[in-house]
Amino acid sequence: MKLELTKKHRSYEGSTNYYSHSSESTGTKMNFSTFEPSAKIESAIIWLSGLTCNEDNFITKSGIQKLLSETNTMVICPDTSPRGLNLTGEHDSYDFGSGAGFYLNATTPEYKDHYKMYDYVSKEIVGILNNHFDINKISIMGHSMGGHGALVLALNEESKFTSVSAFSPIVNPTKCPWGQKAFNGYLINDEESFKYDATLLVKNNHKREDTILIDQGLSDDFLEKELLTDNFVQICKEKGQSVEVNYREGYDHSYFFISTFLESHVQHHLNFLNK
Amino acid sequence: MKLELTKKHRSYEGSTNYYSHSSESTGTKMNFSTFEPSAKIESAIIWLSGLTCNEDNFITKSGIQKLLSETNTMVICPDTSPRGLNLTGEHDSYDFGSGAGFYLNATTPEYKDHYKMYDYVSKEIVGILNNHFDINKISIMGHSMGGHGALVLALNEESKFTSVSAFSPIVNPTKCPWGQKAFNGYLINDEESFKYDATLLVKNNHKREDTILIDQGLSDDFLEKELLTDNFVQICKEKGQSVEVNYREGYDHSYFFISTFLESHVQHHLNFLNK
Repeated sequence: MKLELTKKHRSYEGSTNYYSHSSESTGTKMNFSTFEPSAKIESAIIWLSGLTCNEDNFITKSGIQKLLSETNTMVICPDTSPRGLNLTGEHDSYDFGSGAGFYLNATTPEYKDHYKMYDYVSKEIVGILNNHFDINKISIMGHSMGGHGALVLALNEESKFTSVSAFSPIVNPTKCPWGQKAFNGYLINDEESFKYDATLLVKNNHKREDTILIDQGLSDDFLEKELLTDNFVQICKEKGQSVEVNYREGYDHSYFFISTFLESHVQHHLNFLNK
Repeated sequence: MKLELTKKHRSYEGSTNYYSHSSESTGTKMNFSTFEPSAKIESAIIWLSGLTCNEDNFITKSGIQKLLSETNTMVICPDTSPRGLNLTGEHDSYDFGSGAGFYLNATTPEYKDHYKMYDYVSKEIVGILNNHFDINKISIMGHSMGGHGALVLALNEESKFTSVSAFSPIVNPTKCPWGQKAFNGYLINDEESFKYDATLLVKNNHKREDTILIDQGLSDDFLEKELLTDNFVQICKEKGQSVEVNYREGYDHSYFFISTFLESHVQHHLNFLNK
């Protein structure tokens, strides 16, 4: 696969880069950003962003480059959906279509040819890390819709990801409006949704050996209606899945919350990646 | 003065806030952002942003909240121009008018009633820190056009600011296209420009007791044509103004550069503020 380096900014002892490439999964050009430390990279963390985001949000707002530079850790941030298309309804709302790929493989006629973000992340992004960057130890994390993506990918593809964490994840999308809208628009059969719901995956005996780390703000406007954190905690308890959920008093759904606790997530991943 | 708190996000041990208020200087509503540590604040740093920016850029991209929280330091980030007007030519280009106030008091007929960013920062923002936040020890820093603003304000109003630093500042605007365009559009007399050119201010015997700190990337596309750093270094040497300029190999004009060296600037200010 040919990667085009579109922007390169020296930052700390490394560089923040932007790439573009043709994607087999989506049949479109796709963009991602990275932080690449200058020393030999041993491991990488995939960051999956939330609704309305693209490859730019995390890399400009997280403030994590310093720690990544100090620990020789790479981060890679894919866009959240294909771009440059004009499918029916694709650009009509913030929570469906462009900017809202939900990290699944669509099966509805309108979306099935392009909205393959599950394959894009699990095969192409992982393949780029393996082959282009020569990295085989990979963890995954994300925020909101991207937290959902991280959990679902890590529960389905346990061996591909060393550890998983999430900020404010949508843990039970079949039970919340965001998830229901997405699954109705992207998936033809209800059964397919089992593969893309972290709570249902644990219920159906998917299990990870590592502890799943979640941070959730208690002043998050989406907690009660969309995120449903407790549903996941409950099923993990029932099934013996190790999970650490930190409820954070006063913090909301923003990057200001993410930044505050991001170092602890990176350290969590490094504990597993450096084993 | 009545401040309206429009957004409040808990971040680290403090909060990132956004305010709106009516400005006497500009005759418009003005916006600024802050980081406010939770403990009693002793001192504050004003951040002035560059062309095209508003009150949002630094506070979302700098990643400095952690250090500010740990050191009980407040930062305040004003917008870069009045908004909501429709003056002749105001929205035609990125380097003049909206988003490009240049931290001066305009005197041309079209701009003199509103483009008073020099007064806005030196009187209103300083007044808000003094009266609303009860802070009297204030330093100032900025980037590019905002680096110009920080230098000019600190050289003209020496006693108001404890220390000054800049990233990639426009140090000699009367000699570069950005500055010439701005001064031609905002100022009726050439003589007025002496007040708003850091190199000319030092030449005309304005002097600060503290060392002026500047970081400048050597891969900055604007260095040769717009920033002219050496002109300032030269005049400081001639006039005995203490200045520390760190030229940074490989770094560009972006926030990725700023973030990398921002902690050293904040520490520079704290050395003076905590004296």
